[in-house]
Amino acid sequence: MRRTITGFSNPTVKALRALRDKKHRKRERRFLAEGLRLLTDARASGTLPEVLVMASGRDPHPLLDELEAEVAAAGGEVIEMDEAVLAKVTGKDNPQAVCGVFAEFNTNLADLDRLAAPIWLVAQALRDPGNLGTMLRTGDAVGAGGLILIDDCADPFSAEAVRASMGAVFTQAIAQARWPEFLAWLRGGPGQLVAASLRDAVDYRAAAYQAPCFILVGNESRGLPEDYEAACDLRVTVPMKGRADSLNAAVAAAVLAYEVLAKLEGD
Amino acid sequence: MRRTITGFSNPTVKALRALRDKKHRKRERRFLAEGLRLLTDARASGTLPEVLVMASGRDPHPLLDELEAEVAAAGGEVIEMDEAVLAKVTGKDNPQAVCGVFAEFNTNLADLDRLAAPIWLVAQALRDPGNLGTMLRTGDAVGAGGLILIDDCADPFSAEAVRASMGAVFTQAIAQARWPEFLAWLRGGPGQLVAASLRDAVDYRAAAYQAPCFILVGNESRGLPEDYEAACDLRVTVPMKGRADSLNAAVAAAVLAYEVLAKLEGD
Repeated sequence: MRRTITGFSNPTVKALRALRDKKHRKRERRFLAEGLRLLTDARASGTLPEVLVMASGRDPHPLLDELEAEVAAAGGEVIEMDEAVLAKVTGKDNPQAVCGVFAEFNTNLADLDRLAAPIWLVAQALRDPGNLGTMLRTGDAVGAGGLILIDDCADPFSAEAVRASMGAVFTQAIAQARWPEFLAWLRGGPGQLVAASLRDAVDYRAAAYQAPCFILVGNESRGLPEDYEAACDLRVTVPMKGRADSLNAAVAAAVLAYEVLAKLEGD
Repeated sequence: MRRTITGFSNPTVKALRALRDKKHRKRERRFLAEGLRLLTDARASGTLPEVLVMASGRDPHPLLDELEAEVAAAGGEVIEMDEAVLAKVTGKDNPQAVCGVFAEFNTNLADLDRLAAPIWLVAQALRDPGNLGTMLRTGDAVGAGGLILIDDCADPFSAEAVRASMGAVFTQAIAQARWPEFLAWLRGGPGQLVAASLRDAVDYRAAAYQAPCFILVGNESRGLPEDYEAACDLRVTVPMKGRADSLNAAVAAAVLAYEVLAKLEGD
């Protein structure tokens, strides 16, 4: 059942390696997640890898044994390889002892059930995959339904985003859309669109939020386009007491999301 | 006044390059900051680079002219080099057109004036320089006095931390100390020590905060040691509605810091 690969030039190794490259990842519609913790989170969320890759010198672990059995039972592939070969796949000198190949999720906006959660995070032109993964992690923490990516954002299935999400890539819905498409979808049902803004904005602690509340943050250096903000139901701002005029995008989303959560829960 | 360097093997180029390496940085007690935005922030905070490095092909900019004049007037060095040579210094394919060499700041805990600000951020064994820089940026935003780094943390003067701080490395005080030293210092004056915690913690919205409030977050994967938490005046937690049991460290610090700010201001 378990296949062993020893050579660096094995075609499977090459195919796995190629998933680190965005172009290949998009073509294959597959992505890599590294580490037992992430794979266990995925399994707990009902998602198994199509391919499970394990280092031959790994420490035994009951969770890994269970995972292997489930992957095999589901018709997936289990591959064992030297740590040095695995390092080639993950691009890391000290790779985790296990990684998995997952099918990309459906990111179709029309398939989101907006009533499934009181909070949704929305990012526009977010460029940093670490920020993107952190937003997924925050979304999980505040009980958000998912993250909607507007215009050209970092790839949510990149290794860095998956890692920073700490497993939330498997629990949060992810949708991708251009702005006009998003706005049309949003206005086709209930939903309050709240922009993190510096212009004409009300204090975030004094604002009235309504579920489902869509919290929108903009690009790391440019913020949101003015016409995007104008189309929002509410523009809120957090106090800036120092010299800087903005927060890190993932931080701003978290501060707002926790305020919205508290207000919606009747704090 | 302005010196031009053309060769890659110039000793000044080598010396500047070496500042990307932590060991050299510590020995020289100097660090690099890249980009006109950061250098302008530094200048506005009263800090000039000892050495100003400019790409010869840069676009002219009045702020850069002013900066050059001030650096020269202060007895600093101004160096012009090809973009390709500058790329060697910064280690980036597309370097910003300007960078500066700064003397490291005093990070002596005993020199902090705790009454200078109502909020202080404290991080223990924080490993990610991006998180560290983001905490500095958040500290600036909430009007904190600075960031206290406990035990072995990432280097606040690394390029990644400086970049993520968005200039706050020049406005926030930075102190470094081991835990016993910090605790002795803290208890030698007024100050409420508040841990971001999962154990025996009260809801962060229901807690009573007092200035000067020291907000302590722990290592990215292990959190705070139990005995550190026990020594705190208050352990607070934020709701975790999903599968994950923790937030990103910089996000947790920000959510707490904004709550403390609102409470201290009488929200």
